[in-house]
Amino acid sequence: MRTHVMPEMTWPEYAEALKSNPVVFIPTGALEQHGPHLPMGLDYLVPSAIAKDVAEAVGGVVAAPVTYGYKSMTRSAGGPFFPGSTGLDGQTLSSIIRDIIRELVRHGARRICVLDGNYENLWFLNEGIDLAMREVGDKGVRVMCLQHWEFLTEETLGQVFPDGYPGIELEHAAVLETSLMMHYRPDLVLFDKVPDNAPADAPCYDTWPPRREWVAKEGSLISAKGASPEKGALIASQYLRDISAAVKHEFYELG
Amino acid sequence: MRTHVMPEMTWPEYAEALKSNPVVFIPTGALEQHGPHLPMGLDYLVPSAIAKDVAEAVGGVVAAPVTYGYKSMTRSAGGPFFPGSTGLDGQTLSSIIRDIIRELVRHGARRICVLDGNYENLWFLNEGIDLAMREVGDKGVRVMCLQHWEFLTEETLGQVFPDGYPGIELEHAAVLETSLMMHYRPDLVLFDKVPDNAPADAPCYDTWPPRREWVAKEGSLISAKGASPEKGALIASQYLRDISAAVKHEFYELG
Amino acid sequence: MRTHVMPEMTWPEYAEALKSNPVVFIPTGALEQHGPHLPMGLDYLVPSAIAKDVAEAVGGVVAAPVTYGYKSMTRSAGGPFFPGSTGLDGQTLSSIIRDIIRELVRHGARRICVLDGNYENLWFLNEGIDLAMREVGDKGVRVMCLQHWEFLTEETLGQVFPDGYPGIELEHAAVLETSLMMHYRPDLVLFDKVPDNAPADAPCYDTWPPRREWVAKEGSLISAKGASPEKGALIASQYLRDISAAVKHEFYELG
Amino acid sequence: MRTHVMPEMTWPEYAEALKSNPVVFIPTGALEQHGPHLPMGLDYLVPSAIAKDVAEAVGGVVAAPVTYGYKSMTRSAGGPFFPGSTGLDGQTLSSIIRDIIRELVRHGARRICVLDGNYENLWFLNEGIDLAMREVGDKGVRVMCLQHWEFLTEETLGQVFPDGYPGIELEHAAVLETSLMMHYRPDLVLFDKVPDNAPADAPCYDTWPPRREWVAKEGSLISAKGASPEKGALIASQYLRDISAAVKHEFYELG
Amino acid sequence: MRTHVMPEMTWPEYAEALKSNPVVFIPTGALEQHGPHLPMGLDYLVPSAIAKDVAEAVGGVVAAPVTYGYKSMTRSAGGPFFPGSTGLDGQTLSSIIRDIIRELVRHGARRICVLDGNYENLWFLNEGIDLAMREVGDKGVRVMCLQHWEFLTEETLGQVFPDGYPGIELEHAAVLETSLMMHYRPDLVLFDKVPDNAPADAPCYDTWPPRREWVAKEGSLISAKGASPEKGALIASQYLRDISAAVKHEFYELG
Amino acid sequence: MRTHVMPEMTWPEYAEALKSNPVVFIPTGALEQHGPHLPMGLDYLVPSAIAKDVAEAVGGVVAAPVTYGYKSMTRSAGGPFFPGSTGLDGQTLSSIIRDIIRELVRHGARRICVLDGNYENLWFLNEGIDLAMREVGDKGVRVMCLQHWEFLTEETLGQVFPDGYPGIELEHAAVLETSLMMHYRPDLVLFDKVPDNAPADAPCYDTWPPRREWVAKEGSLISAKGASPEKGALIASQYLRDISAAVKHEFYELG
Repeated sequence: MRTHVMPEMTWPEYAEALKSNPVVFIPTGALEQHGPHLPMGLDYLVPSAIAKDVAEAVGGVVAAPVTYGYKSMTRSAGGPFFPGSTGLDGQTLSSIIRDIIRELVRHGARRICVLDGNYENLWFLNEGIDLAMREVGDKGVRVMCLQHWEFLTEETLGQVFPDGYPGIELEHAAVLETSLMMHYRPDLVLFDKVPDNAPADAPCYDTWPPRREWVAKEGSLISAKGASPEKGALIASQYLRDISAAVKHEFYELG
Repeated sequence: MRTHVMPEMTWPEYAEALKSNPVVFIPTGALEQHGPHLPMGLDYLVPSAIAKDVAEAVGGVVAAPVTYGYKSMTRSAGGPFFPGSTGLDGQTLSSIIRDIIRELVRHGARRICVLDGNYENLWFLNEGIDLAMREVGDKGVRVMCLQHWEFLTEETLGQVFPDGYPGIELEHAAVLETSLMMHYRPDLVLFDKVPDNAPADAPCYDTWPPRREWVAKEGSLISAKGASPEKGALIASQYLRDISAAVKHEFYELG
Repeated sequence: MRTHVMPEMTWPEYAEALKSNPVVFIPTGALEQHGPHLPMGLDYLVPSAIAKDVAEAVGGVVAAPVTYGYKSMTRSAGGPFFPGSTGLDGQTLSSIIRDIIRELVRHGARRICVLDGNYENLWFLNEGIDLAMREVGDKGVRVMCLQHWEFLTEETLGQVFPDGYPGIELEHAAVLETSLMMHYRPDLVLFDKVPDNAPADAPCYDTWPPRREWVAKEGSLISAKGASPEKGALIASQYLRDISAAVKHEFYELG
Repeated sequence: MRTHVMPEMTWPEYAEALKSNPVVFIPTGALEQHGPHLPMGLDYLVPSAIAKDVAEAVGGVVAAPVTYGYKSMTRSAGGPFFPGSTGLDGQTLSSIIRDIIRELVRHGARRICVLDGNYENLWFLNEGIDLAMREVGDKGVRVMCLQHWEFLTEETLGQVFPDGYPGIELEHAAVLETSLMMHYRPDLVLFDKVPDNAPADAPCYDTWPPRREWVAKEGSLISAKGASPEKGALIASQYLRDISAAVKHEFYELG
Repeated sequence: MRTHVMPEMTWPEYAEALKSNPVVFIPTGALEQHGPHLPMGLDYLVPSAIAKDVAEAVGGVVAAPVTYGYKSMTRSAGGPFFPGSTGLDGQTLSSIIRDIIRELVRHGARRICVLDGNYENLWFLNEGIDLAMREVGDKGVRVMCLQHWEFLTEETLGQVFPDGYPGIELEHAAVLETSLMMHYRPDLVLFDKVPDNAPADAPCYDTWPPRREWVAKEGSLISAKGASPEKGALIASQYLRDISAAVKHEFYELG
Repeated sequence: MRTHVMPEMTWPEYAEALKSNPVVFIPTGALEQHGPHLPMGLDYLVPSAIAKDVAEAVGGVVAAPVTYGYKSMTRSAGGPFFPGSTGLDGQTLSSIIRDIIRELVRHGARRICVLDGNYENLWFLNEGIDLAMREVGDKGVRVMCLQHWEFLTEETLGQVFPDGYPGIELEHAAVLETSLMMHYRPDLVLFDKVPDNAPADAPCYDTWPPRREWVAKEGSLISAKGASPEKGALIASQYLRDISAAVKHEFYELG
């Protein structure tokens, strides 16, 4: 294949690719604040990059990214206080995924992997997939849905956080995302703005209206100072290995 | 501004940009076949590029593109026969636009321009805008919605089609789109695949199921042989001038 | 058949008619301003009359008209400034058409023609038809959707506009609609109120809120002075001939 | 007023009428079987006629009829066994009413009366009105919703049914509807087909799939033999008196 | 069976019960005012109790009750004036029933009986059932929908109302519901608060906003003084006999 | 208050309770498999019991439970393999919560706490709350949403799991839920069926169709053998203390 990226393919190239029943990846993300140093499109740029890596490894195709996602929650992404966080209603996001899957299946695709980069998206993606599966019926379609950080191994975390992993719940615009972005798109990182704020301090529930004081003024939930391009490369490399393995396992070994 | 492209901005940069009450552009398009020579993401890549040009000229901001659009119709885009054409349901597209506008307004934006590159999107964009306006109420929000080809002047058409303009209804994956893509993203054009097919021959109505024979096997509605990067540059330049002027007129002169 | 109009039929008459697998026409329109001289129901009255003519010619059945349609846009129908223009949400209109088609198919109808008289309806009709087709599945249903003015020939336009055709985009409550109404329902035309206003002057895009100054205070987009019952008869006669031919071609010749 | 029927009015006439804050009537009905002798549009034709009578008496306006309604239930209208009964989904009907009321209020109307002729419509009309009221907020809008047969007095019933009233639950395509149609639109009644079937015999609940044996093969729930134009005139006259009185009471006396 | 109540069953017990293709009952009700003496959950508590009685008699299963229902209407349940009446939108209620039936069918259930205790629910239940039937297709599913009071016999009414039955339209929080509650859940009845108000006096139509003066300040539509546990037992016993008979007839005799 | 449980209250009691601006709790759960020993209604029974405890402590009111919830996912609740797991569509669940909150606010409630017992519900509850907040506007409404297990302290976990806490992701129908049920409703626990299965073994992503082999045949995700009523009492007591404290903090201290 000249390219694995569907919006860059011509239709005959895509038609040709479909003959091998490839895995079609749908990168999903959001347009949302990621601290003072990271671009607001991070949540779709990162899974687009991961999906491209994996697609090249497994002979897959990467569909156009879903560039808008579900609403930012205060505890996981800073909440609605930061201009730029642009949340779709849940039903809208579920409908997008349902429609895209319906169409990919109509094209002939039978192996679909939703690769998400925005924590808050997950359940509306699940629902969209479920609605699509109900619609497409008994055609042998198989869908996989994953969020990339779920693949992080103990070993990787040990290397990225030599002083101890503070936990995924604080990893918004922090070391992991910053490192990945420094690796994939350093041109979009403001290296001199990497924040060093104290961890967000939120209780174990949500409120409406949300409370501004739960999250640092920077919008990152914890310091990102430990980030580096090398760590990003390390994570990206582990993702490539393990997500490719999982994709092969699900779609080819188990079928 | 370091960049006018919102997904590449940090949130403090966007917050700063909002202070001038800028025009926020939403490029909308589709993932859909564009003949044997053009990438399937063309319909959002082109308006993204135009919006970036105009935003730089008028001090605006370009939101993340809406990468999926309404269903391809046979007479205007070849119909569902071509793998890769990936259509959202009308309500899904309207909901996306409604949600994005609702959120931009929540950020503080008051001047919004939907810049569309997929013919079939228009009415579902209109509806999404109308639903958003009903919701946001009396906050002084003003929205403009345009499809770029509507701005083509007689003069430009005369230069691009020295032998006569066959009409917009055949201009899918043809001279205009091919030239624009040769200008904006030549890396994504297969110059050796530019088709030279006969014009599509369709009646003045639509049918379901659609009729395959109304459109050439290439998926382009007419020959694209006359395309060139120079013509693309000419069109892009006229767009920049006239869309910028319209935007300034609507949002600044009339207010 | 005693009558071709379904709401005037008894159910045994309709059951009898269905035996020949007739074309069932669904006239669609709107309740919307049509200048100072024309009734606001014009957009469903005209396609109801055309559908009746054609149904008599091809042995079809005319279902009850859809009396409300999509929202009036300023450039094509004067916009929301005129009391009486009563627009449904897009999803509502799509649902109506989807539901009616689902039911006609349940009755046993397999040939359905949506005959529209309100420009703004088209895409929501398309979507409703598409949703219905997805639902009814593989039953051999065929649907055709048309807007009557698309059938106007060069010859007819030459006779109706001896001084040159100003183009369909200005033909709201103007010479074509006025003439048709003078022909079909002269009792509903206020002959002494036929307006002679200057053409509407609108740019090539839409805005929200819409701009009142784009359209003449009368609500007609251009002078209707050239209208006459004779011209209406001429158009109606050409419609009868050509729409009947297209219907026969699609449903009987091609099947 | 030249006419009280909104789709026959021009917009300036309607604008003029609105100045007196008139009651705007929305006739609602269905396209559905009404026995071997009555037209399938009866359920919107009758309330249109009643609304016109009442509007002339109280200075009101009659909007375009809603020509499609909710699904025929076996016990009240014969069920889905009869070709021609064309039911909308509940949400579709509610959306239609919600949209129409929203628009009438936008025109300036504040007094709205939904006048229904299809038993199964009621709760979806109620819901549509409720949704509209929630939307329009605190503008002093008042809506009334009625089904015409609820206004029948003991006295009228005594005259129409000298041998005793069998009850409203059997009155589909029977004496009341047949008489009303003989009065309002005798041209649409097949006098020689008036059925004399035995009463429908259904239990006190519904089932899905419905049971064909609960209703006579004619589709009328009981004999219509006692119908006459004179009885129709009697009913119409009582309706005119009592519905006008109720409308005046609600909108003018109580306000 | 250890219990017939599904939310009290373990899944292996339910799986075992499904082997006999039992009738699965879905009790539906509301959270809504029932006068000064009755609990607001009455409308789901009563059908839950009836369903349990009937399920024990016919070997059925009772699913979890639907605890919220459609909006209280003034004429039938006092309207929105009483705090505690908590109405769902119509579409929400229809969706709940559609979803539950879809799932029961997925479990393997083929005989489903919706047993309703809230008058206003009926049509949205009907719609939900219809939507579910459309979805589940041709699997031999049969659904029955009933409101318990429809089963009251002349004989029962004669015994409960020795001085004459005032009619079902006034029986909200009155003698029937109070007696049933005194029988099923005397612990939830405030015997010293049983109201003795005059009958509600409402016309034959509805209005929005509703009129407070149509209903007594207590919220019961007529005196409940005649209620007694013995009458409740009498009604419950007749329900058990006749609803069981109807259920057996529909699901086992007719199949 | 005679009772804190709204469906057991009369409306005057609820009206009286509202005067103190109490916290109104909405218990949400599901009807879904909970292993061979626990009732399928557990997910709404437990939060109903917790909410009652807390409401008594803080002077609150407990609305009727939402008895159906979102679909069971394989990794967190065993998936769709177990008859009885009855999942609503996401939009249905969101609509229920939106509607209930809208109505509670209409009653005058301003402090609302959604107390959830079904893991999969969370994001659809979040969405329903967000939609309700958008609708009710600026009335000073505050909503809190919590899942009870999030309140478990290290100390409690240490006492409940002396051999180490296997983590919340396996706690479906396991020690925590079994203990709570043994405490609150021992009558609904089959003590002799408490399973001792091996832990579920699932990867870090989901698939459609789901994989049966990820979860033990019992439906519990790990052994429940360590459960006891005493542990249940311990947890319930800690919940009462800490949830009450959080509720007071959010609604009374912060306001």
